[in-house]
Amino acid sequence: MKNIAIVLSGCGVRDGSEIHEATLLLLAIDKLGAQYTIFAPNDKFDAFNHYTCKDTDEQRNMLVEAARIARGDIKDLITFDASEYDALIFPGGFGAAKNLCTYAVDGPNMEVRKDVAQAIVDMHSMHKPIGALCIAPVVVAGVLSNKVCVTIGNDESTANDIEELGATHKVAAETDVVIDEANNVYTSPCYMLATHISQVYEGIENLVVAILKSLDK
Amino acid sequence: MKNIAIVLSGCGVRDGSEIHEATLLLLAIDKLGAQYTIFAPNDKFDAFNHYTCKDTDEQRNMLVEAARIARGDIKDLITFDASEYDALIFPGGFGAAKNLCTYAVDGPNMEVRKDVAQAIVDMHSMHKPIGALCIAPVVVAGVLSNKVCVTIGNDESTANDIEELGATHKVAAETDVVIDEANNVYTSPCYMLATHISQVYEGIENLVVAILKSLDK
Repeated sequence: MKNIAIVLSGCGVRDGSEIHEATLLLLAIDKLGAQYTIFAPNDKFDAFNHYTCKDTDEQRNMLVEAARIARGDIKDLITFDASEYDALIFPGGFGAAKNLCTYAVDGPNMEVRKDVAQAIVDMHSMHKPIGALCIAPVVVAGVLSNKVCVTIGNDESTANDIEELGATHKVAAETDVVIDEANNVYTSPCYMLATHISQVYEGIENLVVAILKSLDK
Repeated sequence: MKNIAIVLSGCGVRDGSEIHEATLLLLAIDKLGAQYTIFAPNDKFDAFNHYTCKDTDEQRNMLVEAARIARGDIKDLITFDASEYDALIFPGGFGAAKNLCTYAVDGPNMEVRKDVAQAIVDMHSMHKPIGALCIAPVVVAGVLSNKVCVTIGNDESTANDIEELGATHKVAAETDVVIDEANNVYTSPCYMLATHISQVYEGIENLVVAILKSLDK
């Protein structure tokens, strides 16, 4: 059974992993006959109040909060060993852009966390598939730079930043998957474009289907 | 378009709403052509560390945390008006048993929060469908007592408590839906029995199909 590693960044669209994208990724992997192992960095982030839509002065921990999505079954990303997994996928949510890297603050001058960058570099060097949803393709572009073609949908400003990172951006619709065959990288817009949760599921299922198909070759 | 009200109790299986059940409920409703409106009580609860699996000394707010699952689009349960909705559904998670009522502490001597009980009583008096997943049927049984037949799967201790509340418990398998036609109440075991997220989705889809079918009569 194929084992897909998933990297979360917290629990909530505005300061962590987008919950629907993360959960529907688990559903797609399970429905398609593969299994998943969930990781998150063991580090703090600034929590956001999702009801009032305001910053808070509270800090939480990515691994501890992501454990809510994982129902406790989660590992510290520092223990990730690329040789043990068939693929690596990053759901979106603002946590991808502000906890896994500094894109939310620094734009194309961003830095990617070492544990995250290492996981991507290791999978890429073994030519194993890497997937990213929603805004998470900026993390992959930030690591692989001019080696990779991704989509975040059609947001011009983010697309320009991705090009400035040295990567290529391809416009895509809600449920499309952009496949960079040379790099084995798979991206889909999800909530960058989707207005309905069923569109998000469709895009994610398309992405997981494409990744599993690549593993059968 | 049918509008289904959903009541959350936080964000996380061990101290709030089970995230997969809540998210997959949104997916099923959307896929089946209905819409949803999400509510949670505006009150505090004791937070649990889902990574270390230990109690914390932190309190959080149900409405604020549930807003993470709702992507900010959530209402205070105190504003719930049964006349505006076609059905009412409670996902599971330990929050249903400890935040929405005192079942986790008091067993069959439990009390249900007033805003939660009012929502159930109002829907029931209008003979509108009420659904509950996983452990959440104890909340419905706690309010409607001897008027209702529900399932929480096959856990004998919880089933006995439900019978002690004056309700009837019916044993069910992972993806079954127990329908109490007289009371228009729909329950399914989800993570009380499911070992895979795809089973959880199947049970939830079965439940939403049954509720929408009842609305077409």
